[in-house]
Amino acid sequence: MRTVYCGQVNPEQVDQTVTLCGWVNKRRDLGGLIFVDLRDREGIVQVVFDPDNTEVFEVANSLRNEYCVQLEGVVRARPESQVNAQMATGAVELLATGLTVLNASAPLALDFNQENSEEQRLKYRYLDLRRPIMSDRIKFRSKVTSAVRRFLDDNGFLDIETPILTKATPEGARDYLVPSRTHKGKFFALPQSPQLFKQLLMMSGFDRYYQIVKCFRDEDLRADRQPEFTQIDIETSFMSSVQVMQTTESMIRDLFNQLLDVDLGEFPTMPYSEAMKRFGSDKPDLRNPLELVDVDDLLKDVEFKVFSGPANDAQGRVAVLRIPGGAKLSRKQIDEYGKYVGVYGAKGLAWMKVNNAAEGDVQSPVAKFLNEDVIAALIERTGAQDTDILLFGADNATVVAEAMGALRLKAGEDFDLVEDCWKPLWVVDFPMFEKHNGGLTAIHHPFTAPIGVSAEELEANPETALSDAYDMVLNGVELGGGSVRIHDQDMQSAVFRILGISDEEAREKFGFLLDALKFGAPPHAGLAFGLDRLIMLMTGATSIRDVMAFPKTTTAACPMTEAPGLANPASLVELGIEAYAADESSSEKSAE
Amino acid sequence: MRTVYCGQVNPEQVDQTVTLCGWVNKRRDLGGLIFVDLRDREGIVQVVFDPDNTEVFEVANSLRNEYCVQLEGVVRARPESQVNAQMATGAVELLATGLTVLNASAPLALDFNQENSEEQRLKYRYLDLRRPIMSDRIKFRSKVTSAVRRFLDDNGFLDIETPILTKATPEGARDYLVPSRTHKGKFFALPQSPQLFKQLLMMSGFDRYYQIVKCFRDEDLRADRQPEFTQIDIETSFMSSVQVMQTTESMIRDLFNQLLDVDLGEFPTMPYSEAMKRFGSDKPDLRNPLELVDVDDLLKDVEFKVFSGPANDAQGRVAVLRIPGGAKLSRKQIDEYGKYVGVYGAKGLAWMKVNNAAEGDVQSPVAKFLNEDVIAALIERTGAQDTDILLFGADNATVVAEAMGALRLKAGEDFDLVEDCWKPLWVVDFPMFEKHNGGLTAIHHPFTAPIGVSAEELEANPETALSDAYDMVLNGVELGGGSVRIHDQDMQSAVFRILGISDEEAREKFGFLLDALKFGAPPHAGLAFGLDRLIMLMTGATSIRDVMAFPKTTTAACPMTEAPGLANPASLVELGIEAYAADESSSEKSAE
Repeated sequence: MRTVYCGQVNPEQVDQTVTLCGWVNKRRDLGGLIFVDLRDREGIVQVVFDPDNTEVFEVANSLRNEYCVQLEGVVRARPESQVNAQMATGAVELLATGLTVLNASAPLALDFNQENSEEQRLKYRYLDLRRPIMSDRIKFRSKVTSAVRRFLDDNGFLDIETPILTKATPEGARDYLVPSRTHKGKFFALPQSPQLFKQLLMMSGFDRYYQIVKCFRDEDLRADRQPEFTQIDIETSFMSSVQVMQTTESMIRDLFNQLLDVDLGEFPTMPYSEAMKRFGSDKPDLRNPLELVDVDDLLKDVEFKVFSGPANDAQGRVAVLRIPGGAKLSRKQIDEYGKYVGVYGAKGLAWMKVNNAAEGDVQSPVAKFLNEDVIAALIERTGAQDTDILLFGADNATVVAEAMGALRLKAGEDFDLVEDCWKPLWVVDFPMFEKHNGGLTAIHHPFTAPIGVSAEELEANPETALSDAYDMVLNGVELGGGSVRIHDQDMQSAVFRILGISDEEAREKFGFLLDALKFGAPPHAGLAFGLDRLIMLMTGATSIRDVMAFPKTTTAACPMTEAPGLANPASLVELGIEAYAADESSSEKSAE
Repeated sequence: MRTVYCGQVNPEQVDQTVTLCGWVNKRRDLGGLIFVDLRDREGIVQVVFDPDNTEVFEVANSLRNEYCVQLEGVVRARPESQVNAQMATGAVELLATGLTVLNASAPLALDFNQENSEEQRLKYRYLDLRRPIMSDRIKFRSKVTSAVRRFLDDNGFLDIETPILTKATPEGARDYLVPSRTHKGKFFALPQSPQLFKQLLMMSGFDRYYQIVKCFRDEDLRADRQPEFTQIDIETSFMSSVQVMQTTESMIRDLFNQLLDVDLGEFPTMPYSEAMKRFGSDKPDLRNPLELVDVDDLLKDVEFKVFSGPANDAQGRVAVLRIPGGAKLSRKQIDEYGKYVGVYGAKGLAWMKVNNAAEGDVQSPVAKFLNEDVIAALIERTGAQDTDILLFGADNATVVAEAMGALRLKAGEDFDLVEDCWKPLWVVDFPMFEKHNGGLTAIHHPFTAPIGVSAEELEANPETALSDAYDMVLNGVELGGGSVRIHDQDMQSAVFRILGISDEEAREKFGFLLDALKFGAPPHAGLAFGLDRLIMLMTGATSIRDVMAFPKTTTAACPMTEAPGLANPASLVELGIEAYAADESSSEKSAE
């Protein structure tokens, strides 16, 4: 029905007759002529209707915005004065020779000329997706998955599907559940990731697996989370962590090269401990030049307990964030920073304005507790210059990292220090475990292999063990993460013991994985990328919902289809479940 | 860790040292040497261990089947007498120079040298998938999806994800349901297909969409059904049915060319009515030369009511299946055919053996009811030859088509008439509606457009209307089907009225689609292929379970993970649902 897309009409076609299909983006009547901007997925082209062609002109006269039409016309160059450099097709226009209205349109439920509420946009998603900014993102997403697949196909990865209906376990707190009809009272769970299945595929010998796959998590939704999200899921056999990192790094580098014409270069690698020390984050945004500086050793002996307490505590930490030119901050602004770090558990924010660094002349409510030598040492250690401010985090190490790491990001924005560029890195050498409620939990997941220790050594000193895990971070966003997996039964049992998972519980949850380890499981490693976040970053969208065709609201509902909905009562009986009566008023309310 | 896959070692590498990773497929000790067949996903290669290399030989001596090893060796040509033409690597072998056991293996839970029960195979799926026949199928599947994606990418189709958590409706009897935590008492449904979403994407202007996507149906499982299955889902705007057929036909043709080196040629197109007449099926297997021949007109006046009844009934049909050489069938065999058609509702199977066609000499229990002219006319109409048999189906048209269509397939097999080849075709011109419980139901789905009638004309004569739908059939298997969709509100309302769907019900179920039709919806059409069935056909597998990595049993359970399982009781409370106590004994039983 068409010979070319609207957005692809170009000067080479001048004098040719082309046929287009698309939507009326705008109509203007001017000097007796009708001008229509016709839009399709590739762009917009201007069409002129001349009243001399009575028949066609009459049809054109009926056109309203968003009418769907088929149009025949002759391409002609625009007079130089009318060339529109803003438009891809701005050098040409069509003189219409034929016009058929394929479908009329009522006035749109969304006004494209103003901001629409997200509720409205989601309710009329099919209209919202007509906006070029939205359709461009969805098209870009398709280009990304296509490029990723080609890279992985070309590198010997096999695309293998894993089940969506997987096993519910009594421990799976945030699983979406699906009642089984055949096995009443039992449930399937929707997978939070295909982790175990991809490991089993390695044990089957598939060697290199990938899948671009939906995953599910029934959690309290935050602005950047969705109940269903998409992973680029990868697993390999006989590869070290370095090899997995090299392979996936070149995939991402190729992607940026190909689709954004950006060269990400070689990704630096940074140990977790360094990232926490310097940036207070395991996903540091390296575009921001600010860094934390540890000063515990300088403050061990000061009288000021707020400093000396953490400085002398093995779990404590005192770190300084120096903001160049920060001395201009008002008391009110400093107070606001204090409140800001309070959100992360910091009990206060000591500060020190540097009037004259060379002379040790500072302005600070805590200066009175510090002698000249300490102040001089702080100035030297942080490299403080005149007009800088030093902000102090003093607490247990976790609070300091979180609070000062967050403050670093905020100050970087406020002082306009964040470079407009791409800064990727790998974070590695994570601890295997972290303390939680008196026990240890796995930082990654319980199948992650430690670096360079035997099962016995790991059990002897679990808290100091590092995992062979790696996270890819770009501009402060964790794009993906993975690890070398345990392929040894004894090591896996040791990890379960350290995590306080009983043999019985391990069997119940992962019995098939433990069985599989008995039969010559190969060394294997993998990684998963969050596709939605990757697209968000690449397109500059500010919400994950803007890079998905049909997202849910933050209360996990769909205003368009009105999902979730009431179920067939007979089905519920067949499934052997009873649903409490829906409290319409409260659920309606929470959906708003 | 490797330099080459086992299955890719070749004579060009002779004298080179290579490193392999893989599994011990077989070990033989012979003449003081140890021979090991080492296997990875690409194939098997023979490795020789020489006792002169004491260290390596000692490690080799510890090898058992399915040990996972890393091996270094020098490639050498086998002496001509030992070349194994059965093996891809049969011209070479490796002389081992290094060997590391990466993981030992217990004796396998599956014996690869015998048939294992499907229950065992599914329980130890990760081992079952090591069998080359299985891993080849999964690898082939990956090749198919990759080729399909490249074709569609190259033809301007956009890969767009649609939701898995969609709207439950009280009418959705076979939906898998997912209780919502945020909206207690309400449910999501897993999609049986992305039909509505892909139509909405056309209304958004994406023009060409595809997705290789999981779909779900909670139905009583048959041998060839799975609770989750995969579709190649396609939708286009501004394309006629013929263009959609051409595009998807060339996709399938390319696929067979590329992966099986088979040229499917141009697909013939056959109207539904012709398929039912000649083959008693809407998915005729054209490899089978047998055809049904209608003889109603010849039997209208015979005394035999079994024939004359249906022959004179507008809903009835009398059809003959002629089997060349079928006169050799024994009475017992004919009785079995009678029982066979009984399954499809036929009340009997009249037959006529042709002794001498020219003389009208036949042997038949019903010959006495038919005069010479009728017998001569039957012989002429069916083209019967000496030694043929004619089998009669006489009943209402549906029963005749189903029973005689099935018998045609069976006889084709029994008489070894089915050609070993590929016979694709398109079946088109389906009726829009069929009678069901006194009302009309849609043959495809209620969004299918009729051919060449207005909404008024359709409502006036719904029973004779044909739909603009098309099924692609290959060797008697429906590979895919689709249709031009309704893009006009009035037509959509007319179809809902014909189907007895009230305005209220239509709004409840499809309100958003009806809304979307108001805003310049483009003409659009699409199609979906069953990926699993396509792979099954292409690989020659006899079960859909053999082309999926982790399928469910026929009772929708997974013997490996033991899904479905018991849910977290606290989660059930949070979800606002109560599950009846699981009747362990009965569900265990049904899982077996």
